[in-house]
Amino acid sequence: MRRISFTTEHGTIECPQFMPVGTQATVKALTPQQLKDAGAQTVLANTYHLYLRPGHQTVEKLGGLHSFMGWDRPILTDSGGFQVFSLASLRKVTDAGVEFQSHLDGSRHFFSPELSMEIQKSLGSDIVMAFDECPPYTLDKKQIAQSMERTLNWAKQCRNFKLKPHQKLFGIVQGGMFLDLRQECIEKLISIDFDGYALGGLSIGEPIEQMYEVVKNVTPFLPEDKPRYLMGVGTPEDLIFGVKCGIDLFDCVMPTRNARNGQLFASTGKINIKNAQYAEDPNPLDPKCNCYTCKNFSRAYLRHLYVAKEILSATLNSIHNISYYLNLMKTLRTLD
Amino acid sequence: MRRISFTTEHGTIECPQFMPVGTQATVKALTPQQLKDAGAQTVLANTYHLYLRPGHQTVEKLGGLHSFMGWDRPILTDSGGFQVFSLASLRKVTDAGVEFQSHLDGSRHFFSPELSMEIQKSLGSDIVMAFDECPPYTLDKKQIAQSMERTLNWAKQCRNFKLKPHQKLFGIVQGGMFLDLRQECIEKLISIDFDGYALGGLSIGEPIEQMYEVVKNVTPFLPEDKPRYLMGVGTPEDLIFGVKCGIDLFDCVMPTRNARNGQLFASTGKINIKNAQYAEDPNPLDPKCNCYTCKNFSRAYLRHLYVAKEILSATLNSIHNISYYLNLMKTLRTLD
Repeated sequence: MRRISFTTEHGTIECPQFMPVGTQATVKALTPQQLKDAGAQTVLANTYHLYLRPGHQTVEKLGGLHSFMGWDRPILTDSGGFQVFSLASLRKVTDAGVEFQSHLDGSRHFFSPELSMEIQKSLGSDIVMAFDECPPYTLDKKQIAQSMERTLNWAKQCRNFKLKPHQKLFGIVQGGMFLDLRQECIEKLISIDFDGYALGGLSIGEPIEQMYEVVKNVTPFLPEDKPRYLMGVGTPEDLIFGVKCGIDLFDCVMPTRNARNGQLFASTGKINIKNAQYAEDPNPLDPKCNCYTCKNFSRAYLRHLYVAKEILSATLNSIHNISYYLNLMKTLRTLD
Repeated sequence: MRRISFTTEHGTIECPQFMPVGTQATVKALTPQQLKDAGAQTVLANTYHLYLRPGHQTVEKLGGLHSFMGWDRPILTDSGGFQVFSLASLRKVTDAGVEFQSHLDGSRHFFSPELSMEIQKSLGSDIVMAFDECPPYTLDKKQIAQSMERTLNWAKQCRNFKLKPHQKLFGIVQGGMFLDLRQECIEKLISIDFDGYALGGLSIGEPIEQMYEVVKNVTPFLPEDKPRYLMGVGTPEDLIFGVKCGIDLFDCVMPTRNARNGQLFASTGKINIKNAQYAEDPNPLDPKCNCYTCKNFSRAYLRHLYVAKEILSATLNSIHNISYYLNLMKTLRTLD
């Protein structure tokens, strides 16, 4: 089993590793201390959201994202590309970039590869993602190929941008469900030369078999000596599959979002904590888990908090789900 | 300055002390660990709420309230009286008790002094409050006197109820704004003999001068050798006033409720964290505060979390406001 680690100015990331998502400069419902206690080595933050609010220049004035959110370990920022395509409205894509309207107030903005780099430079993240186009997977091969060319052009522009000395830049592989396009994209990205490579445009609605097919067949073409990141994936099963294919890094909102909805992961199977069967259940969520939630509280209490709509429900559930994901990765790191 | 401490099965409470409110078996947005880190020695939980949900018998089956909510320090439970009068609808009060409809689902219930004791016994709190009637302060003297007599009869019934060996029972002084009735009530409660005495029926809408007048003139009649508890009060100024009058214990939702609304206490004055003036303010909330929030985050970040409606906003703000209250009490404990 592949097992690399790589070092950033804010610490070493042991791989395979899962990155909790801190969209708005906070992993929802968790303090940085709780994240560390759960074993998090790195978090992901979203360029699109932080650009809109509080603004990357504000974050920079306040000493950068690490200082702003009180997180002194590595941070990866996405490029804003995926978020613009999935959240904003009235998008207009040209070779220069993307015009869009904010989901917050409808204000008009324009993201170019340069602006994405500028924002991520201001944020000061350790890992910067190249700005890419993430087209619907249903487009035909010609359209996907054209979009991929645009992504490659943008990738070059990103590579030419002068980031801060400590920042690493990852390129993003597109090419839809077409293995030959994916392979071509990888070769061209390698010739630009990035510090790591990510598989983008997956887990965006396509059948899971197709996603697995791409991950399985494309990952071997990624450089051995650079981190490999499967973006926005996924379920615990997806992570295990990805690791087997040679992926090093993952991120997904699933553990935290599910936690807030009362959907919890456990070694005994999934638990929907609002179910009446847990009303008087004195057992911990997961008897095999050593997290703060499982060490201190019963399923009955967690159900009560959820039913009573208490904020602590989101916190305790998130501590557990994040711990579950991080422990899974830790276990995978011990496998031969 | 009066400075007592008293010991319960779950630890000693140094007075004067403020008790964070954990209505539904959780101090909103805070883990027990965060409460301890803020210095909390004891919390208050609400009998009315826990009776309705998850049910006191459920809590008992799960090992009692301490185990249920993961709090191993002292717990005080109120009697349910005040909550029934302020939250439930269609109340009908007789000498036997109070019939009411749940604020959750409109179901009908009846609270008697015995049931209040039974519930608090099941919860296993360290300090149990006698069941009292809390009439509007605007009633005339004759009505207040009649209500007080009912409270005294109920107090006797509560005293005759067999609680768990470790549980202490506090009597509640009523009598509205009439000092002679308050004094009479105290004398009769003392003859029943409680482990502590509380001033009830205050901070329920009356002008603050009247509340201060009652606290100032009535507290001296409370026994010197028993804890004195001013229920549901109040602002930091109210606490200072109460301590000067010889009060030992306080509880109030203000620090946590205000925290969730972005209203923060600081040595430099009150802060409304949503104000634009804090958008780029790199300073901690309160430069004199040593809490987790003030040690790790800027006003700008706290404003961002509040504006972005992040759950962490409630948590970090609550940590600070509770710390502010507890630090205030700690300081008052050092005064001669």
